[in-house]
Amino acid sequence: MLRPKRLTHLSRCGSPRMVDVGEKPVSRRTAAAEAYVAVGPAVAALIRKTGAVAKGNVLETARLAGIMAAKQTPAIVPLCHPIPLDRVDVEARLEGDRVHIVATASAEARTGVEMEAMTAAAAAALTVYDMVKSAGKGAEIGPVRLLEKTGGRSGRWKREEHHRGPR
Amino acid sequence: MLRPKRLTHLSRCGSPRMVDVGEKPVSRRTAAAEAYVAVGPAVAALIRKTGAVAKGNVLETARLAGIMAAKQTPAIVPLCHPIPLDRVDVEARLEGDRVHIVATASAEARTGVEMEAMTAAAAAALTVYDMVKSAGKGAEIGPVRLLEKTGGRSGRWKREEHHRGPR
Amino acid sequence: MLRPKRLTHLSRCGSPRMVDVGEKPVSRRTAAAEAYVAVGPAVAALIRKTGAVAKGNVLETARLAGIMAAKQTPAIVPLCHPIPLDRVDVEARLEGDRVHIVATASAEARTGVEMEAMTAAAAAALTVYDMVKSAGKGAEIGPVRLLEKTGGRSGRWKREEHHRGPR
Amino acid sequence: MLRPKRLTHLSRCGSPRMVDVGEKPVSRRTAAAEAYVAVGPAVAALIRKTGAVAKGNVLETARLAGIMAAKQTPAIVPLCHPIPLDRVDVEARLEGDRVHIVATASAEARTGVEMEAMTAAAAAALTVYDMVKSAGKGAEIGPVRLLEKTGGRSGRWKREEHHRGPR
Amino acid sequence: MLRPKRLTHLSRCGSPRMVDVGEKPVSRRTAAAEAYVAVGPAVAALIRKTGAVAKGNVLETARLAGIMAAKQTPAIVPLCHPIPLDRVDVEARLEGDRVHIVATASAEARTGVEMEAMTAAAAAALTVYDMVKSAGKGAEIGPVRLLEKTGGRSGRWKREEHHRGPR
Amino acid sequence: MLRPKRLTHLSRCGSPRMVDVGEKPVSRRTAAAEAYVAVGPAVAALIRKTGAVAKGNVLETARLAGIMAAKQTPAIVPLCHPIPLDRVDVEARLEGDRVHIVATASAEARTGVEMEAMTAAAAAALTVYDMVKSAGKGAEIGPVRLLEKTGGRSGRWKREEHHRGPR
Repeated sequence: MLRPKRLTHLSRCGSPRMVDVGEKPVSRRTAAAEAYVAVGPAVAALIRKTGAVAKGNVLETARLAGIMAAKQTPAIVPLCHPIPLDRVDVEARLEGDRVHIVATASAEARTGVEMEAMTAAAAAALTVYDMVKSAGKGAEIGPVRLLEKTGGRSGRWKREEHHRGPR
Repeated sequence: MLRPKRLTHLSRCGSPRMVDVGEKPVSRRTAAAEAYVAVGPAVAALIRKTGAVAKGNVLETARLAGIMAAKQTPAIVPLCHPIPLDRVDVEARLEGDRVHIVATASAEARTGVEMEAMTAAAAAALTVYDMVKSAGKGAEIGPVRLLEKTGGRSGRWKREEHHRGPR
Repeated sequence: MLRPKRLTHLSRCGSPRMVDVGEKPVSRRTAAAEAYVAVGPAVAALIRKTGAVAKGNVLETARLAGIMAAKQTPAIVPLCHPIPLDRVDVEARLEGDRVHIVATASAEARTGVEMEAMTAAAAAALTVYDMVKSAGKGAEIGPVRLLEKTGGRSGRWKREEHHRGPR
Repeated sequence: MLRPKRLTHLSRCGSPRMVDVGEKPVSRRTAAAEAYVAVGPAVAALIRKTGAVAKGNVLETARLAGIMAAKQTPAIVPLCHPIPLDRVDVEARLEGDRVHIVATASAEARTGVEMEAMTAAAAAALTVYDMVKSAGKGAEIGPVRLLEKTGGRSGRWKREEHHRGPR
Repeated sequence: MLRPKRLTHLSRCGSPRMVDVGEKPVSRRTAAAEAYVAVGPAVAALIRKTGAVAKGNVLETARLAGIMAAKQTPAIVPLCHPIPLDRVDVEARLEGDRVHIVATASAEARTGVEMEAMTAAAAAALTVYDMVKSAGKGAEIGPVRLLEKTGGRSGRWKREEHHRGPR
Repeated sequence: MLRPKRLTHLSRCGSPRMVDVGEKPVSRRTAAAEAYVAVGPAVAALIRKTGAVAKGNVLETARLAGIMAAKQTPAIVPLCHPIPLDRVDVEARLEGDRVHIVATASAEARTGVEMEAMTAAAAAALTVYDMVKSAGKGAEIGPVRLLEKTGGRSGRWKREEHHRGPR
């Protein structure tokens, strides 16, 4: 990682701002982000059981929450631009005692869709937490992190493999 | 933790539902949640420098984003009840190479404000990520977790101390 | 039905207004509304098949859409009051070639929750239409109508039985 | 109508998803939808009288509600894409004992604006119901249905004439 | 006006915060605010003419926009509490070459409804500007100001008469 | 200013409508608007003092509120089109006893961004009012007015200099 000189979301005099993307060319943008929710073995067993009996509704509800939140990104993250998203997809599955969420977004836009993917992943994780908290308030969300993005001047960025395992 | 029998957000036949809180008494509810954003040393140095020069705007923007997101909780987390919040507060500071966010919420309501605190913390963390991502896409959010809650039938819950350190 | 003298949502000089409910006592309010979506036999077969294979996701998505829309009622219906809902529930099932949606809402409030139930039912129906429209744009929503409400000065209202059958 | 093979809003494994429209070309899209509200003779007389005396405010309020709701479509219908609408128009008039609403929308986009027109029509109808319900809770909304759409790969679709009369 | 010691919306260390109203008693709150839009004689004549011919729709649209915006106050003004409004009313009329808007709000709450009235007045004024700007971009909004508020510890506050005339 | 014949936001028969911009070419659009908040000398001194001690948080909060409100413009101003904004910037500073806000917006769109700039300025002003009202309810917002706009068929418009001074 090169040493950054300045945070682009702060003006020269340090005030937060929405970056001007008017000069950037429109290009196809994609981004993928992931989130984990460590729910503990008892809740994991419940989700597994419910998944069999009752159609995996914790995970399905989380997925829809993620999709809807992606569209609200500019209202949740103050300096984000409104983006006409072409696609949002959220996958959620149980891996051991953790729910693993992967959110992807794409658009043809002047700025990237990383925040849409990150917001979708975080909202899906919050929704899992909400649904299991009566059974286990100690559940923890994290890491929530970008996996990959393409498009724009900086092109493709991909999280290095050894960063993708469990914490 | 006792073995939960059922997830309260799923009906007997497994469908997600908004829990009926109509029979619960109104009581004072508080909740605190925290979130970390691991930004790496280079970005941490930038935030520190900007904090001195330009009034800590990454952290201030994150705080406001958290406060505003708490009020949007029912629109972000599908099964949350709308709650007339009496207070939301979000603190954010740099601790080493991580931004540490603590969000608190309170209300007099039939249901708890855990999700408002969790959503505020997560949105503040997303906002930090948004503002530093041009300098470091590898930053990671987490853990996002409940620290404490009071009120309601289940009364006080507090995260055990040894769970509160760095991951 | 008695002859109404005036529409309460219009002021004496005919302008639309939000009715002042400040003088009304707080009471427990409930309402139930239903909506139908006539999808035709081919789509009904697909929903049925998908329901078996893939967990009834058209109906589950519709249910969640209804729950979330109920919370947005004051932003959708201009003269509605914001209400701290205690519960929203939406059921959706296939009956012959129609999807039948029943939405219920309750709150302790100065004004009724009829519009929350109606909005939930309508939004669930729109969501069904959205998901089946690629297979059948001719699908029709309706009737959307109140089934019952309780609470408030006017007390209980219930749709008469012979009005509840298929159109 | 050809037999559909699959609902495009469900993935191969049956999960609801936002359809990826990234590969579709941008084209001019229009859609028109209608909704009826059967209000009964007493309320119809009131609307008529108010229309003369007080400028048709039930109908005007419904029209504005429809226009505003069209812009909220992606927040109401979970799998809808955000679309930069070029136009929304909502007409509302009394026809006998029913209010007839026609909503039209257009955009230059990768996906159609059917849901924007349908949502506008439904929200306008809900608003009529809200304003007349104190005088007649038995009022019914429906049918809400697409009249026509143009643009996109599937081109023009028009509801057949004999389907357009009263129920 | 007494000399204020501190702004209550800033914490002791100067950070913006949502004031904790949890300790305040619930009381009936009302507020009234006004806004002017100076539209110039040509546009005023058009509004007047349209009012006669076409039912005063600039003013009616502004009124509804104000009512709807009042309900969005916590999403527009970052440190405002969500309040279960009992009533919002917005009047708008032409006075000479200016549109005069008066917005009133009331609720039974722990905090005042001044911002709801102010936001309603401002949004109604923005809507008037939007509708006349093609005819006169030079139109000006202002003053937007509180007229009166009641309830809460500070009780009644009323703008002094000589402040209520034209600027 | 030429004599306008008709308000474009009213249809031929006088009903409010969203203007159809589908036929307009996409062009780069910019707009700047300003707002003043007259806070009085005591509050001005407090803001100044807080600005030194505590990082100008009234002004920073107002700036962020303006940026976020610009993105909500289509939900606040009923007949506005949704616009994919490329940039929003809000400046706020104390000038004597008044806070002076300047908001700018830009987009590549079929319609102008005047309302986004005006809404940002007004929301920032409302936020200043909210934060100082405990110290001075008599504060007044205004004028809120367009300074300049570029792009579109009507091209550049600029407020004449002698209109830009203090009231």
